[in-house]
Amino acid sequence: MTSLSGPLDGIRVVDFSGYIAGPFCTQLLGDMGADVIKVEPPTGEQWRVQDPFAAGFSKSFVALNRNKRSIVLDLKTDAGRETAKELVASADIMVHNYRPGVAERLGIGYGAMHALNPKLIYAVNSAYGPNGPRALQAGYDLVIQAVSGLIASNPRPDGKAPRRYAGIALIDFTAGQMLAFGVMTALVQRLRSGVGQRVESTLIEAALSLQRQKLVSVEAVDGTHQQKATGTVLDRVHAWAVQMNDLVERELYYRTYETSDGYVTVGCLNVPQRQHFMAIVGLDDPWFENPDAPPQSPEEDRSRRALTLYAEAAFTEKTTAAWVETFEACGVPCAPVQMSDDLMFDEQVEAGDYFIDFEMPQFGRVRTMGCGLSFNGRPNGHRPPPALGQHTQEILDELRAYQTSAKHA
Amino acid sequence: MTSLSGPLDGIRVVDFSGYIAGPFCTQLLGDMGADVIKVEPPTGEQWRVQDPFAAGFSKSFVALNRNKRSIVLDLKTDAGRETAKELVASADIMVHNYRPGVAERLGIGYGAMHALNPKLIYAVNSAYGPNGPRALQAGYDLVIQAVSGLIASNPRPDGKAPRRYAGIALIDFTAGQMLAFGVMTALVQRLRSGVGQRVESTLIEAALSLQRQKLVSVEAVDGTHQQKATGTVLDRVHAWAVQMNDLVERELYYRTYETSDGYVTVGCLNVPQRQHFMAIVGLDDPWFENPDAPPQSPEEDRSRRALTLYAEAAFTEKTTAAWVETFEACGVPCAPVQMSDDLMFDEQVEAGDYFIDFEMPQFGRVRTMGCGLSFNGRPNGHRPPPALGQHTQEILDELRAYQTSAKHA
Repeated sequence: MTSLSGPLDGIRVVDFSGYIAGPFCTQLLGDMGADVIKVEPPTGEQWRVQDPFAAGFSKSFVALNRNKRSIVLDLKTDAGRETAKELVASADIMVHNYRPGVAERLGIGYGAMHALNPKLIYAVNSAYGPNGPRALQAGYDLVIQAVSGLIASNPRPDGKAPRRYAGIALIDFTAGQMLAFGVMTALVQRLRSGVGQRVESTLIEAALSLQRQKLVSVEAVDGTHQQKATGTVLDRVHAWAVQMNDLVERELYYRTYETSDGYVTVGCLNVPQRQHFMAIVGLDDPWFENPDAPPQSPEEDRSRRALTLYAEAAFTEKTTAAWVETFEACGVPCAPVQMSDDLMFDEQVEAGDYFIDFEMPQFGRVRTMGCGLSFNGRPNGHRPPPALGQHTQEILDELRAYQTSAKHA
Repeated sequence: MTSLSGPLDGIRVVDFSGYIAGPFCTQLLGDMGADVIKVEPPTGEQWRVQDPFAAGFSKSFVALNRNKRSIVLDLKTDAGRETAKELVASADIMVHNYRPGVAERLGIGYGAMHALNPKLIYAVNSAYGPNGPRALQAGYDLVIQAVSGLIASNPRPDGKAPRRYAGIALIDFTAGQMLAFGVMTALVQRLRSGVGQRVESTLIEAALSLQRQKLVSVEAVDGTHQQKATGTVLDRVHAWAVQMNDLVERELYYRTYETSDGYVTVGCLNVPQRQHFMAIVGLDDPWFENPDAPPQSPEEDRSRRALTLYAEAAFTEKTTAAWVETFEACGVPCAPVQMSDDLMFDEQVEAGDYFIDFEMPQFGRVRTMGCGLSFNGRPNGHRPPPALGQHTQEILDELRAYQTSAKHA
């Protein structure tokens, strides 16, 4: 079986990438039915062995490498590089996340591959793109969090230094998604024009993209083009922390409350929702029409903080389930705060069919997050993550058959 | 001008969506050259007026609505709904984020639109998808943060209740990107098969997708299929906070340090990088080969915390720039912590060409985050965000011309 049933049936991807962004991109393509060939060194891709739960498989690897076949090629040898090129010649899409210059040294740079296969879509994820002072640097998720402003905008309320932004590789995931979108866009263009091209996503742009609502400057109105901020980073991070904390301490309608047995989150973004909220909690907030406006006086600030303290006390008097039921009855968006491992047992998650189960001979049943998209139904047929080199011989046999038929065609 | 120069030149999108996820999706399509027609009610899309900086424009709106044309249609009237249907009949792609049932009530549900235009790709972003107990609920970003485990996994170090996950609408952005990927995948399928289809992304799946490395369960190895966690959410969130804090307090190699004038982030993910780190900081860490392994004894825990305190003290003795220069010289990934408004002046950002500037007659020059992808070059030609109804007449005139030519064809 070389391909699965889905919108990308019959599309072949050769994947040289590792870690998160590249493998996530190619898993998305595999989820859609593409035949993804994962090229691994003899020691396996790095994440197979990063915190493994069994020989050759980590949970991160399992989460990012289903719907792929694995071939081992040693790109340090002439024979390995030659086979890699032959695979690319037979493919629709190639993906890598090497640092600038490495693909060229391996003989699989864009120029050579485009000459070999003009229909090829050549996809790259890099840290900073080809230009600029940091173009040659490695860019792990956390480093890009620092340089892009994500860490600084998430200070710790205890006043200590911000450390990391999140328990998830936020930027890697968004960069991988972006690359998958770019590859599909280039494939649309190829289907219309017959010509492939190079497409590149970068970690830094993924990080900026997430902050795009902040990153708007308008010359005539706020003059931000002309003003570079002053003060040390230290001062500015602390000032931001104080400002964020202020906002949060006064916030009533779009936040999380502690209840008698957990937490509940409410999200009131319009006037009718806030009116329901006030009626339910028993509040009379004169500022409900524009709760994001800053207080006009110290007295107003104190009054608004007092309302928040009142609401916080009220919330501790009932259970999370009781609050959820009451808010839902009048259409106020709300939800219990759940731990992510609750989700494996959540009724909505079960009914929504968000996970994918597959059987692996090594371990039995494996459950991972699904493809995250529905078409007229879900794409069907899922292949478990491969063991290292599991399909080397199968892929090589297919390649010889392809070359023979191409020669005779 | 009805389309811009890019891979999606000549593809027409009719966009009924509001807020973030839908408009971000259609802006991505517009960035690639599609002709995006934004259908707005007479009062304008909600985000035009949410915290506006000028009449009819908020920064959020500007960040999410370039490369679109605006038409005003009142879908509460028969005439408005009729024109909407005619627009969809002439389009390749339609996007909405109505709650389940609303599009059908407006006469633009999938069944009717597919019958009208079998080549149409009908794209929907919803909170939870069509099934399950919460299918009919509204799902703003924060509410999905709560229910998906994102808030609980980001507790506050001061021991207070977790409130919100981030200053950004993380889930909206990833759902919008995912929908853009799904739309392109469906367009690939249509170009190969001639038939359009429905494609749906959900906020809940975008939130689960970001946590996919955690959300792996493997039956035979860890038995998580069988075990539902016990204890109250309160207990579990606090236990998680303690565990996270422990990890962070002992972490040496993948974190942020305070320097004499700011913060620097280092990301050492392998042994050679950690050896460079030790030499530079002047540490002798016996546990450097596997720093994520938990301590084996209270003594080891104390020793490792002492090493971290030593490193923290060492970092305060030099400037951020000095640390960055030293680490970069031996290839250790690192970066200064920057505020996001520094990025408007960052050399790398300038050289990388990550932003897009355009002129708006109302305000002068406007700078926003670019499209985040490079093809053989950047897609060219950018259209500023439209004023409300700016293109109503132009679009209606085109529609009449299209209908006349279709009738004669």
